[in-house]
Amino acid sequence: MYTELKREAYEANVSLPRHGLINLTFGNASAVDRARGVFAIKPSGVDYTAMTVEDMVIVDFDGKRVEGTLNPSSDTPTHRRLLMAFEEIGGVVHTHSSHATAFAQAGMPIPIFGTTHADYFNGEIPVTRKMTAEEIGTAYEWETGNVIVERLGNVDPLDFPGVLVNRHAPFTWGKTVAKAVEVAVAVECIAHMAMMSLQLAPKLPQIEPELLAKHFKRKHGPGAYYGQSDTKTKS
Amino acid sequence: MYTELKREAYEANVSLPRHGLINLTFGNASAVDRARGVFAIKPSGVDYTAMTVEDMVIVDFDGKRVEGTLNPSSDTPTHRRLLMAFEEIGGVVHTHSSHATAFAQAGMPIPIFGTTHADYFNGEIPVTRKMTAEEIGTAYEWETGNVIVERLGNVDPLDFPGVLVNRHAPFTWGKTVAKAVEVAVAVECIAHMAMMSLQLAPKLPQIEPELLAKHFKRKHGPGAYYGQSDTKTKS
Amino acid sequence: MYTELKREAYEANVSLPRHGLINLTFGNASAVDRARGVFAIKPSGVDYTAMTVEDMVIVDFDGKRVEGTLNPSSDTPTHRRLLMAFEEIGGVVHTHSSHATAFAQAGMPIPIFGTTHADYFNGEIPVTRKMTAEEIGTAYEWETGNVIVERLGNVDPLDFPGVLVNRHAPFTWGKTVAKAVEVAVAVECIAHMAMMSLQLAPKLPQIEPELLAKHFKRKHGPGAYYGQSDTKTKS
Amino acid sequence: MYTELKREAYEANVSLPRHGLINLTFGNASAVDRARGVFAIKPSGVDYTAMTVEDMVIVDFDGKRVEGTLNPSSDTPTHRRLLMAFEEIGGVVHTHSSHATAFAQAGMPIPIFGTTHADYFNGEIPVTRKMTAEEIGTAYEWETGNVIVERLGNVDPLDFPGVLVNRHAPFTWGKTVAKAVEVAVAVECIAHMAMMSLQLAPKLPQIEPELLAKHFKRKHGPGAYYGQSDTKTKS
Repeated sequence: MYTELKREAYEANVSLPRHGLINLTFGNASAVDRARGVFAIKPSGVDYTAMTVEDMVIVDFDGKRVEGTLNPSSDTPTHRRLLMAFEEIGGVVHTHSSHATAFAQAGMPIPIFGTTHADYFNGEIPVTRKMTAEEIGTAYEWETGNVIVERLGNVDPLDFPGVLVNRHAPFTWGKTVAKAVEVAVAVECIAHMAMMSLQLAPKLPQIEPELLAKHFKRKHGPGAYYGQSDTKTKS
Repeated sequence: MYTELKREAYEANVSLPRHGLINLTFGNASAVDRARGVFAIKPSGVDYTAMTVEDMVIVDFDGKRVEGTLNPSSDTPTHRRLLMAFEEIGGVVHTHSSHATAFAQAGMPIPIFGTTHADYFNGEIPVTRKMTAEEIGTAYEWETGNVIVERLGNVDPLDFPGVLVNRHAPFTWGKTVAKAVEVAVAVECIAHMAMMSLQLAPKLPQIEPELLAKHFKRKHGPGAYYGQSDTKTKS
Repeated sequence: MYTELKREAYEANVSLPRHGLINLTFGNASAVDRARGVFAIKPSGVDYTAMTVEDMVIVDFDGKRVEGTLNPSSDTPTHRRLLMAFEEIGGVVHTHSSHATAFAQAGMPIPIFGTTHADYFNGEIPVTRKMTAEEIGTAYEWETGNVIVERLGNVDPLDFPGVLVNRHAPFTWGKTVAKAVEVAVAVECIAHMAMMSLQLAPKLPQIEPELLAKHFKRKHGPGAYYGQSDTKTKS
Repeated sequence: MYTELKREAYEANVSLPRHGLINLTFGNASAVDRARGVFAIKPSGVDYTAMTVEDMVIVDFDGKRVEGTLNPSSDTPTHRRLLMAFEEIGGVVHTHSSHATAFAQAGMPIPIFGTTHADYFNGEIPVTRKMTAEEIGTAYEWETGNVIVERLGNVDPLDFPGVLVNRHAPFTWGKTVAKAVEVAVAVECIAHMAMMSLQLAPKLPQIEPELLAKHFKRKHGPGAYYGQSDTKTKS
């Protein structure tokens, strides 16, 4: 019944190890169908190589499993929280990609040092505050979503399509789950380069505002002129 | 006669270079059959690409070769010591994976900075004390096992499923040898991220106890809720 | 009509991800036909795996699209500027390769520490000044080419076959676009090694002039004795 | 006429990019036939993917090309010098592998921090002195061999089967060229781990002498007990 949605989630999930973002089973992706009020997500702890389209689990916005026999990812409440809060997004991706996770573990946002970063984020990549013992002890995964939403505040989630969860790892999103995967790739690459730029120049200031604006707007918003209008898959 | 056990050990051994944990012949894996009192282990110095299931060597707990024509790994006494000391484990893996070995060479435990680590270890990844000249000069490989056992002390070996041997490299274990391989992958990944977090924040404190407890218990013990009950291969 | 030129540009473009220089769509290559006054370049934002020879866009030196239905790369004016300024070159390559980009983001030239570097560049790999708000706000991509040309000044562009654009990433060139790809590979490798040499020896002086001269001239100019005269593809 | 020797050299050469030791054409391997007084070596600047067994060039100890139509590697005099000086070796390998080259560029030996290193070298991996302007200006490649020989002095070349050439990169050797390739892989891996151990512990002392002796002798000399006596390819 949800074949297309499951396929979309499946393709995103299996692309994560292919992009080198996932070791073992450290990550998951979800794709939402807003008209039907459900999303498809990876089953918990299943090997990427053994996983099939049919294994994707369909969950509704109350957190109820609507279709599928496997348990959904233990991170499902985080996905659900984000999909509910950010109505313009079509999917969420969670990885433990190494360089981005190194920043998350250190509780540091990723400073914006160059145009690669500015092509994807309208500023530094934010990091959440630490979660409280109470948040951890109760509905942990749902609260993980909450601290992300709290951190973003009033900015447009498509201007900042990802957040590092303190002590944990990145979550990214986009208009489609495929776009959320692309942002996850970019975040890992940006983190790697930022770390090396910091090693070369420990006091490096962030990018100049006019260059940030130029690059971000080349790809986003009404004046965007990157890519094709509708002919081929754009990045 | 020991075909299944040999196959299990063989699969674990050949997966090590596939996971990028092994260069040349730097590593080995063993799988135990407790009922029959033997374990299967990689032959010494044989190339991973040339190795076959039949090349696995069967050794008993006295260190006697029970089946096979090749010499077992020179690290066999270390495996034997660990398999004897930790009765709940089904296999042992030894690698010289780069980032974990960098910590081992420096004689430093791997500090626990994030949830990736907490998913596998209930605290930092321990490092042994240095071995004495006497230990090195006599039954070196057996004594290597002894310093690991000494370092673990009274903790549950499944709460700390691996140890770095000072100046040497990591050994890991698990309920099965496949699980020991998984821990070896995780240890390398954790070591890499810890090193980068330290580079970003040299005085970074370790993870908060409640977050450690939450993540470790999501995956281990009676309250675990990660993965599937029995449907598919869990991680 | 421009099949050979398109094929040359296509081969260069698809070799970039194969060399590990490109993530997603971060990069592009162009090949020029000086007799006909046109160059072939990658279309904007098209996935490398979906791209075909026919997708290459033919552009003339006024920046007009002469053949092809897709939009050319948004970096086309930078390529055009370089192809016009450096008459001895046959192609231009732009990547965001990680280590070279880390230097570019830090606004640092890549110091010349060894013979690998001296095999390709007759000194350090230059970095441009930062672009002004006005340059960024008007014909940004054309001005990007201008700051590269300004930085090179009067040196032979084949003595310095690449420049880092400040806050951005490397551009490289060569007698052919295939050679420009080779330089892009070398720049990334050189950047990686320079960063590590700096980590080992933060005050490391640059290479001795006589060793630089020796290695550069082994491969370039009338006394070159590296490679074959005409038998096989040389590097 | 020299088919077996050419094949041996060819196999070693094409294995270098497969081991990730070579980018572009940065490297070469030679295999010697002492009875016939010749060695086979890679042709200069030929692409690894285009190279065939027949392309290997046969050179004698006077440096004369005995068979083959291509120019031999420009590094041929270095190989010749080493093959003449170290009579117990069967082949030489030269790479610009990244981490080892970073040490060479910095003019630093690779300190011996762990057992991986002690399995291959009986102490730190030496680095040559810088070459003089006169050495560089005359028979540069032959003199490169000379500074390596000078640096080794009276030690057994099989106790120290490789040297870093200052400002340049590693050369390794072994009883066979296949063994020299293995050492080249080990040197790169050892360099990577040493750099990381230094990052974790900048004042880390080198390995304890008894542990060095134990590991080196497990694999080398009359008391060696690593590997198989003659059944299978040993490492």
